[in-house]
Amino acid sequence: MTSFAGSLRAGSFNRALLRAAVEAAPEGMTIEIVDISALPLYDADLEAAGLPEPVAAFKRAMAAADGLLIATPEYNHGVPGVTKNAIDWASRPPRESPLNGKPVAVMGASPGMTGTARGQSQLRQAFGFTNSYCMPQPQILVARAHEKFDAEGRLTDGATREHLAKFLAAFADWIGIFRAPRS
Amino acid sequence: MTSFAGSLRAGSFNRALLRAAVEAAPEGMTIEIVDISALPLYDADLEAAGLPEPVAAFKRAMAAADGLLIATPEYNHGVPGVTKNAIDWASRPPRESPLNGKPVAVMGASPGMTGTARGQSQLRQAFGFTNSYCMPQPQILVARAHEKFDAEGRLTDGATREHLAKFLAAFADWIGIFRAPRS
Amino acid sequence: MTSFAGSLRAGSFNRALLRAAVEAAPEGMTIEIVDISALPLYDADLEAAGLPEPVAAFKRAMAAADGLLIATPEYNHGVPGVTKNAIDWASRPPRESPLNGKPVAVMGASPGMTGTARGQSQLRQAFGFTNSYCMPQPQILVARAHEKFDAEGRLTDGATREHLAKFLAAFADWIGIFRAPRS
Amino acid sequence: MTSFAGSLRAGSFNRALLRAAVEAAPEGMTIEIVDISALPLYDADLEAAGLPEPVAAFKRAMAAADGLLIATPEYNHGVPGVTKNAIDWASRPPRESPLNGKPVAVMGASPGMTGTARGQSQLRQAFGFTNSYCMPQPQILVARAHEKFDAEGRLTDGATREHLAKFLAAFADWIGIFRAPRS
Repeated sequence: MTSFAGSLRAGSFNRALLRAAVEAAPEGMTIEIVDISALPLYDADLEAAGLPEPVAAFKRAMAAADGLLIATPEYNHGVPGVTKNAIDWASRPPRESPLNGKPVAVMGASPGMTGTARGQSQLRQAFGFTNSYCMPQPQILVARAHEKFDAEGRLTDGATREHLAKFLAAFADWIGIFRAPRS
Repeated sequence: MTSFAGSLRAGSFNRALLRAAVEAAPEGMTIEIVDISALPLYDADLEAAGLPEPVAAFKRAMAAADGLLIATPEYNHGVPGVTKNAIDWASRPPRESPLNGKPVAVMGASPGMTGTARGQSQLRQAFGFTNSYCMPQPQILVARAHEKFDAEGRLTDGATREHLAKFLAAFADWIGIFRAPRS
Repeated sequence: MTSFAGSLRAGSFNRALLRAAVEAAPEGMTIEIVDISALPLYDADLEAAGLPEPVAAFKRAMAAADGLLIATPEYNHGVPGVTKNAIDWASRPPRESPLNGKPVAVMGASPGMTGTARGQSQLRQAFGFTNSYCMPQPQILVARAHEKFDAEGRLTDGATREHLAKFLAAFADWIGIFRAPRS
Repeated sequence: MTSFAGSLRAGSFNRALLRAAVEAAPEGMTIEIVDISALPLYDADLEAAGLPEPVAAFKRAMAAADGLLIATPEYNHGVPGVTKNAIDWASRPPRESPLNGKPVAVMGASPGMTGTARGQSQLRQAFGFTNSYCMPQPQILVARAHEKFDAEGRLTDGATREHLAKFLAAFADWIGIFRAPRS
């Protein structure tokens, strides 16, 4: 499974949440974290001239994975440009996009009370276009994140750790649904 | 499969679209249309006092169905109150809701250019809460609906009829994914 | 100024928040609360046949007011059908709508953590269509509402009371902006 | 007035729409176009280490202007990462942001039928956080843009040109509302 965090800050709660997910993954699930900091801003001319290597690598990682996990902040009541820019690159061109038919799970952490509720809502809308299978429930909205991670970015809140483990187990099941042989 | 239109007007394009869906349904799919005009406005006190019969009937129809098809207008850049009110009733209480784990497909028609794009986007967000499996693609946005239905409310536009048939076939597959036996 | 709560439940936190607003209103601001429980579901045929009296009364109250204050819950990650239905009635027909050019303020309360964040976001989108002047900031999202109101529905949380007073003072200024004589 | 297009493609319809706006501006309105292609992805560490010059220049242009006009595409049913990234930079830190109290107008063009309806809806939500005064109406959604611009990127569609002129005149009035002296 592949994953990325929609924040570039070294001390980002969402990068920390993703590291916690790597540890909390159920047996049989391996979560690879992709760094999106080298992606340029989406530019169709750049795309047409030959994909920049960081974009090509990002798309290859996604194509090879059986699922995509995203940890996103919320900026300005919506999806961050950084998160959306990664999706915009991955979505192109629609028919060949690695997002097409891909199971996706979204989570988020923020210092405020709303735990990225609005950011996640906007992000999920994208998967209606890309034909990705976004897991509806359970959801992870980590509010007051500064109280739940320690200074080294370790998820120390027990209830959140437990919920994260359930969330990942549910995502394993969700991925399984779309992999099952059908008559 | 059950279905409803989020418009009460007799000449509604969305009710007409639903009737067209009944005709265009692939072999093996039966679409029952539920009338939501008798639903009261959602009121938790009313709910606690004993479900009004139209609500109970609506929820029974949904519980018995293997999928839910909604045809919704867009009002004021969003989901109509009429459409959302039906979902609000059906969603309660969350654990017993017939929407929980239900495959859902959304379509919409409007006289304008945007074909209910924003109304559908808002409606789809609800299914993230209700844990319904909302089909991401294909989508049906019937723009300039007055040119595509005749005076009797028959869908006369060939391209739209064809797209509707593909949409329903895809929904049959989507329902099948969640019904498949899993090891 | 007129106002309504998008919840019909007698013990609703949003109705309680509206009553608290009446008390917290700055000098010179009178907040009239309109009951929307008698509004039927929006139906264009009903509208064409002659407005039902509760709708007509609702629209008159709005037309007479210099501002509109809404307290809305969030249902299913979005605007409640009850709240949106009231807006759908008031918005019609667009050119004569009492919402056209009306200053609006939105607030909300919920027992959860997100304090109606997603419900408010969807509701605000409507005012882009109705050409209403929706105050961007400050905002009121009352999370964990059950800890902030007492059993009689009185707002007992000091910080929230204070923020509510500031919010209403800001709304008075916002209304003033659109009333000011211009050269 | 300052402005930017949320697309980096040389032949972008939204950059073309912005150039058309420069020509269609009413007397007394000057529209400066800012290039956002040199903005890095938002990174709080980068911000803390000293604003990159392209960001500083972007924020200065915004601070000096009495209004902000944005032409945005829609990608994946939402606001493009490119557009949102510019807003994310400009919004920081909230109290000193040049977006605070700034009149804003949003328009968009796309080759499809929906004319960026969903992209604009998501973008407008940001201004609820940044306390910007986003003009509700009129709106500009240029659908089937490839039929309305010529090969050199000139807006050749008469109805759209006319609507654009009205839109800009309305924006001049909207800016005036917030500049008016108040007692």
